[in-house]
Amino acid sequence: MSNNNVQIFDTTLRDGEQVPGCKLNTEQKLIIAEQLDILGVDIIEAGFPVSSPGDFKSVEEISKIVKNATVCGLTRSVENDIKVAAEALKLAKTARIHTGIGTSDSHIKHKFKSTRENIIERAVKAVSYAKSFVEDVEFYAEDAGRTDNEYLARVCEAVIKAGATVLNIPDTTGYCLPHEYGAKIKYLKENVKGIEKARLSCHCHNDLGLATANSIEGVINGARQIECTINGIGERAGNTALEEVVMILKQHPYLNLDTKIQTEMLYGISQLVSDSMGIYTQPNKAIVGANAFAHSSGIHQDGVIKNRETYEIIDPKDVGVTESAIVLTARSGRAALAYRAKNIGYELTKLQLDEIYTNFLDFADKKKEVDDKDIHQIIENSKVYNEIISA
Amino acid sequence: MSNNNVQIFDTTLRDGEQVPGCKLNTEQKLIIAEQLDILGVDIIEAGFPVSSPGDFKSVEEISKIVKNATVCGLTRSVENDIKVAAEALKLAKTARIHTGIGTSDSHIKHKFKSTRENIIERAVKAVSYAKSFVEDVEFYAEDAGRTDNEYLARVCEAVIKAGATVLNIPDTTGYCLPHEYGAKIKYLKENVKGIEKARLSCHCHNDLGLATANSIEGVINGARQIECTINGIGERAGNTALEEVVMILKQHPYLNLDTKIQTEMLYGISQLVSDSMGIYTQPNKAIVGANAFAHSSGIHQDGVIKNRETYEIIDPKDVGVTESAIVLTARSGRAALAYRAKNIGYELTKLQLDEIYTNFLDFADKKKEVDDKDIHQIIENSKVYNEIISA
Repeated sequence: MSNNNVQIFDTTLRDGEQVPGCKLNTEQKLIIAEQLDILGVDIIEAGFPVSSPGDFKSVEEISKIVKNATVCGLTRSVENDIKVAAEALKLAKTARIHTGIGTSDSHIKHKFKSTRENIIERAVKAVSYAKSFVEDVEFYAEDAGRTDNEYLARVCEAVIKAGATVLNIPDTTGYCLPHEYGAKIKYLKENVKGIEKARLSCHCHNDLGLATANSIEGVINGARQIECTINGIGERAGNTALEEVVMILKQHPYLNLDTKIQTEMLYGISQLVSDSMGIYTQPNKAIVGANAFAHSSGIHQDGVIKNRETYEIIDPKDVGVTESAIVLTARSGRAALAYRAKNIGYELTKLQLDEIYTNFLDFADKKKEVDDKDIHQIIENSKVYNEIISA
Repeated sequence: MSNNNVQIFDTTLRDGEQVPGCKLNTEQKLIIAEQLDILGVDIIEAGFPVSSPGDFKSVEEISKIVKNATVCGLTRSVENDIKVAAEALKLAKTARIHTGIGTSDSHIKHKFKSTRENIIERAVKAVSYAKSFVEDVEFYAEDAGRTDNEYLARVCEAVIKAGATVLNIPDTTGYCLPHEYGAKIKYLKENVKGIEKARLSCHCHNDLGLATANSIEGVINGARQIECTINGIGERAGNTALEEVVMILKQHPYLNLDTKIQTEMLYGISQLVSDSMGIYTQPNKAIVGANAFAHSSGIHQDGVIKNRETYEIIDPKDVGVTESAIVLTARSGRAALAYRAKNIGYELTKLQLDEIYTNFLDFADKKKEVDDKDIHQIIENSKVYNEIISA
């Protein structure tokens, strides 16, 4: 495995599904898991088996059908959780148990009413127990974003010794700034003894709109796994959006970091998850929103037509969108109107365009979006119509 | 004016409105402009006056009613654009003309078929002409994100000499990574002669999901204005979301950067813009999405109840959301069920809760969201019901 490979840990079916009113049934989860496997994610976190009978069943069924990805189940640092997860995962080709505990002072004090040393003991015990079932054990240090680095490094060292293969450093509250999260990963990479035996993982929440940026700064600083969901869905403001981090790495080849994702499947799987959960992405959602590749302002349309690269960095085909839709509104410039008119059969001179563009603007000020039929009508109602030669 | 004040330049009514099918009429724009003024934005970019008669009228009418903010109109580096903008702005208490030109090699070559030296001449001419109408002239270097820093610094020096008061450094394609955008701002702050006479401004697009992070890295590195829109609306994947950058600065007081925004108005104005444009924010939109403060997973609900700060960094009241809604699903833990049961009048013992929680999970596996009426029914259908004492 190349040192430049960033593993994509998809948690759409676990952390992503924690959305009020949007629980998926096992059948829906199986369809999504199958697509995630084809998409090329490295790990599918399929659920939290001990949390409910439905979750257990979903993890068990997903384990049976996944062909390439590792299947992972979440647990707390509790023996029974781990035993139940191992049971749910027993038919997986490759299985991972994901266990962990809160490490910030706020969690230690308020949630566990415990001490730092006791938390390390519980963490080590959980990892060791999980290792008795599977080789691949990921440890999460919940609220790592607010855990002080020196203590966090001690937790990491202890669980690596106990056999943890992956260290998940979650910014549970979505509070970190990108340079801070990057610095935290760098600190661990440089200060945890035995870090070469494990992979650091970014798990960021989007409460302040920074999940994607934090994950990217994480991998730039040495992490090699990103935990993310399709469309960035999840509890509160959601998780890191898979499609965003994947396309950032693809569009910045000089970072020399890559994933195995088949990007041309991104738009389709976004629609599948959106439809299954009943959570629609807003039109301006990056990469997969309905407008992500649509241009309406005049300046931009002129530029797009002259040279796609002037404004569009991503080729829409790369993410499975078949063309970059050009929509005309009162903001559209003369070039866009002329281009569209030509497409539907009218070759306009500059003088003809002057009159037709004025009529177009009056029309567009009243009607929000101008379609081809409207353009036909605008041209045919113009005084200059008789002079127009069909293109 | 304090050196730590970050000016908020709202472009909801200009760059934000460039969404296919979502054009606002003048009346709608006036209602939003009035609210933006009360919200405390420093500058309202009201439109692009030369682009259509409707836009001209909107800028003119907004200029009449805004009491506190500077009103700004967009132009290209074209004399007529600037003259028309000055005309539209003439009744504003404080007016700004925003002019500029593309500075990346891609724009210079493909869009303008020009040279670097000629672009500087056109920029200087535009700024000088704008200065003949208003004192406050902002210059945008379109596609600055892909413009090489040494040339960009020369452009900045030239327009500052011509009288530009603000330098807008747009990442037009949304391509920059946060550390790159921050480094660009830092380079300009350190290398542009006369930079102390002007304010650097961040204008970031969200094509890769990085607009908010880039703007924040921009102000950390010396910029003192952020151009943004309510809900992050705008063409393609939209602009920087005003509510995100404002709350990031508020929640990180050690950055020592502040804005004049009345944050408790954020949720209301988000709803106003969303309703006016017919663009609904996704439930997991940071800060203003319907789920931004809702918790459903058991682990988290237990934590929230024990101590709000365990999981919630932002007090929902700070952004105008009256309470953090707790929704029950199959993911909800025992503590959340017990808490909600208590709220509706049942004080459960641990043993009672054991049975009721099992029944609750069966029920929740079938029904996506469990409301108070369902909880009543689950409890009253349980064998332990007769032993339950009303709380």
